[in-house]
Amino acid sequence: MSDRIANAQLRDKVMSAEEAAQFVNHGDKVGMSGFTGAGYPKAMPGVIAAKAKDAHGNGQDYSIDLFTGASTAPECDGVLAEADALRYRMPYQSDPQMRGKINEGAMKFQDIHLSHSGMMVEQGFFGELDVAIVEAVRITEDGNIVPSSSVGNSVEFLNAAKKIIIEVNSWQSEELEGMHDIWLVPSLPNRIPVPISKAGDRIGTTYIEIDPSKVVAVVETDAPDRNAPFKAPDEVSEQIAGHFLDFLESEVQAGRLAYDGYVMQSGVGNVPNAVMAGLMNSKFENIQAYTEVIQDGMVDLIDAGKMTVASATSFSLSPEYAEKMNNEASRYRDSIILRPQSISNHPEVIRRTGLIASNGMIEADIYGNANSTHINGSRLMNALGGSGDFTRNAYISSFISPSEAKGGAISAIVPFVSHVDHTEHDAMVFVTEYGVADLRGLAPRDRVAKMISIAHPSYRPLLEEYVERAAKSKFQQTPHDLRHAFDFHIRSLETGTMKAEG
Amino acid sequence: MSDRIANAQLRDKVMSAEEAAQFVNHGDKVGMSGFTGAGYPKAMPGVIAAKAKDAHGNGQDYSIDLFTGASTAPECDGVLAEADALRYRMPYQSDPQMRGKINEGAMKFQDIHLSHSGMMVEQGFFGELDVAIVEAVRITEDGNIVPSSSVGNSVEFLNAAKKIIIEVNSWQSEELEGMHDIWLVPSLPNRIPVPISKAGDRIGTTYIEIDPSKVVAVVETDAPDRNAPFKAPDEVSEQIAGHFLDFLESEVQAGRLAYDGYVMQSGVGNVPNAVMAGLMNSKFENIQAYTEVIQDGMVDLIDAGKMTVASATSFSLSPEYAEKMNNEASRYRDSIILRPQSISNHPEVIRRTGLIASNGMIEADIYGNANSTHINGSRLMNALGGSGDFTRNAYISSFISPSEAKGGAISAIVPFVSHVDHTEHDAMVFVTEYGVADLRGLAPRDRVAKMISIAHPSYRPLLEEYVERAAKSKFQQTPHDLRHAFDFHIRSLETGTMKAEG
Repeated sequence: MSDRIANAQLRDKVMSAEEAAQFVNHGDKVGMSGFTGAGYPKAMPGVIAAKAKDAHGNGQDYSIDLFTGASTAPECDGVLAEADALRYRMPYQSDPQMRGKINEGAMKFQDIHLSHSGMMVEQGFFGELDVAIVEAVRITEDGNIVPSSSVGNSVEFLNAAKKIIIEVNSWQSEELEGMHDIWLVPSLPNRIPVPISKAGDRIGTTYIEIDPSKVVAVVETDAPDRNAPFKAPDEVSEQIAGHFLDFLESEVQAGRLAYDGYVMQSGVGNVPNAVMAGLMNSKFENIQAYTEVIQDGMVDLIDAGKMTVASATSFSLSPEYAEKMNNEASRYRDSIILRPQSISNHPEVIRRTGLIASNGMIEADIYGNANSTHINGSRLMNALGGSGDFTRNAYISSFISPSEAKGGAISAIVPFVSHVDHTEHDAMVFVTEYGVADLRGLAPRDRVAKMISIAHPSYRPLLEEYVERAAKSKFQQTPHDLRHAFDFHIRSLETGTMKAEG
Repeated sequence: MSDRIANAQLRDKVMSAEEAAQFVNHGDKVGMSGFTGAGYPKAMPGVIAAKAKDAHGNGQDYSIDLFTGASTAPECDGVLAEADALRYRMPYQSDPQMRGKINEGAMKFQDIHLSHSGMMVEQGFFGELDVAIVEAVRITEDGNIVPSSSVGNSVEFLNAAKKIIIEVNSWQSEELEGMHDIWLVPSLPNRIPVPISKAGDRIGTTYIEIDPSKVVAVVETDAPDRNAPFKAPDEVSEQIAGHFLDFLESEVQAGRLAYDGYVMQSGVGNVPNAVMAGLMNSKFENIQAYTEVIQDGMVDLIDAGKMTVASATSFSLSPEYAEKMNNEASRYRDSIILRPQSISNHPEVIRRTGLIASNGMIEADIYGNANSTHINGSRLMNALGGSGDFTRNAYISSFISPSEAKGGAISAIVPFVSHVDHTEHDAMVFVTEYGVADLRGLAPRDRVAKMISIAHPSYRPLLEEYVERAAKSKFQQTPHDLRHAFDFHIRSLETGTMKAEG
């Protein structure tokens, strides 16, 4: 048995995942660790999926409601969705199997701000949580949990659940211990300020305290996280990143940002990678990240002495960087902090840090409303994630996206977004490969030209055409022609492209 | 000269409003006190409007950009709009003249979260502020300002402006002194937690400290606030209020609320009035309000010993209650606190108090997105106000509205809202006279039946018809038929009613 289970009482609970599956029953509400493919349980999802398939094969019902931190992996969200083992899922997903099941109507998905999700569990909005299944690096002598490569909503789940199953994963480095900072706002009516003023402030413990009497099983695993290979930025991504970096420079010139005052929040993807590469050779120094996930580029910035600290709730590394982190975690313990997502994404801390938010999107409209989640209004892509937490409370919020997708069939700028995740009141700056639309201080009508200027040229005439129609509205605060507001999307649904015929 | 101007240096600056108008020039950015018809300058807007008219009469340009706390009054927003004296206005308005000018395109309006508006001025997002015009109860010996019946964004404006004009209004009771609690979060990079844990915590000064050398004029006035007469709740409002109170009771039954744990945020209007009347005879005790405006009903609850404290940024009283407050302000100094709106509406404090938010709306859709601002997508009604600040950070957020308006021509529940101010991720509970739609924990498709159940019966078949069409979508996360999503609104624009013919 692994010497990572230092508590005698919990050593007695070690069993196989198959045995532990007895504790997860039809109709249960189950909270799992896991955030962007890091720190999710590796064994239990598979055996729960098998249990569901067995039940269904015998004509019995079996499904659970699954709560996590964010996305997990094929061997978690993927196998559970494929087995039709889920009735309901929140707050984020990005799995192809699961996306398919959601969009065909086979399971329900609720898209919740990541900063709200654990809090809502604590507040009892979902009723009682039956089981928490949490991956650990090790179990301490006192029976507490040292989390692995993410924290997510694990603390809330472990507090709320009637039963606890711990997966101790020996693939995860024991050196991660000391990197976590576990602190939750006390429950109502005793909430107090989160005592974090700077991204690097540590306020809690390096482990999650649990009630060991709730632990029904400890399962040993040795399996890697889902770490997606790093993709080198393409030309469009580099152009967008260039515009974003120019925007940062222009904020310095305007006296609204200091070269040593950049607090970064960044979504994941090609453009953020290119931004971080660009920062390596920029005038920005002492960069801090207060964000959701630690990416390869942040590790590089730390190594180069350009970034002093990165605070997040999870790693989201390439396999190469994950291995490096596993080997050298102790070296990064001063500069990387993993917090509960209720803290990494907490509105109050985000606002306090004065961070500049930068997130991807599916589409934005001519007035600056943004859609992060749905294709053509109905089809779920991934989900909202923390984009709302950061956008709403950032010093400056920005959205970055190529101006078109699917080989030009989809425009990122449309007359009316088919789903609103971030309103015109929240989004400030949009960036595509054609430049920056800075909407700060602008009434709706003054935003239109800026948004069209960053649209792909092939879509500008169609957008202008819509603006001309809309200008005939009797009401000029936010001129629209609702008869044609969704023409781009309807064309896309009917013909496969947002482009007009002829 | 009034003995309310206790500072000798500033006594030398006393002049008429007409004389002070020399300091407000074409193209200026002007910040004024004022929030929901309380505490706005009474004299300067009129003379600025006259100056604009004179200039226009002489063929000259004259317009300013106007920033306030929220709405003001006919003698402020009204006269300025009527004189075409405004190029740009933020963050809220509710004036008929101004609404008309905005919707006809004669001026620009930007609708900004009230908690963000002062902060954005401080952050320099609008460039330099030229003039701050602020109403005071009195000027202290040290040259500081005791604000009057609202605080709004006055502190940010006074800090940011190059020139200051103070209106000392002897209509406002000197007894208001001591009721204000003036504290701002220090500027970046020195932001710290707001040290408020409970609605009643006092953390600042009772006056606004200013740089007296920036004061260019002091103007004496004696004029009442715009205080709208109290309207007794009608039958529909009482039904809605009854459902809302039942909902609070059900939260107690579910263990999610205590009878002495209700922290109230409330919009203004008939339904809130009815809710507060209902609370008088309820089991709820020691109610606290952490809200934007102090309303008649809160004063009644305080008088009855049902409410321990009400924290806001402004009064919004009937003339009768305003007179009472002016006469007995000292009696309410322990139970009423007026704060800067950046604090009354601060995300971090809202979340910390665990308040239950309750705001009006124009329409909501079958998936729980809410529109607070626009008729048929284009026509501005009032603005967002603090509804987003509270909805996003509340313990429970609710929207209350009659199920129909304009004698049945408008349904409050529609297939797709024509403007999104609060997304499906933010709004939790909707209440009409037909009941409560509690959307917590529900995926989009599970929300539809709940939302239709609170629609007016005459609109339910049309909504069902849309749902049937939408159900044919290939994608089932949020089924829509974008060809017909705005049919309700298009009918309304074309025929004057959302009802179908025949």
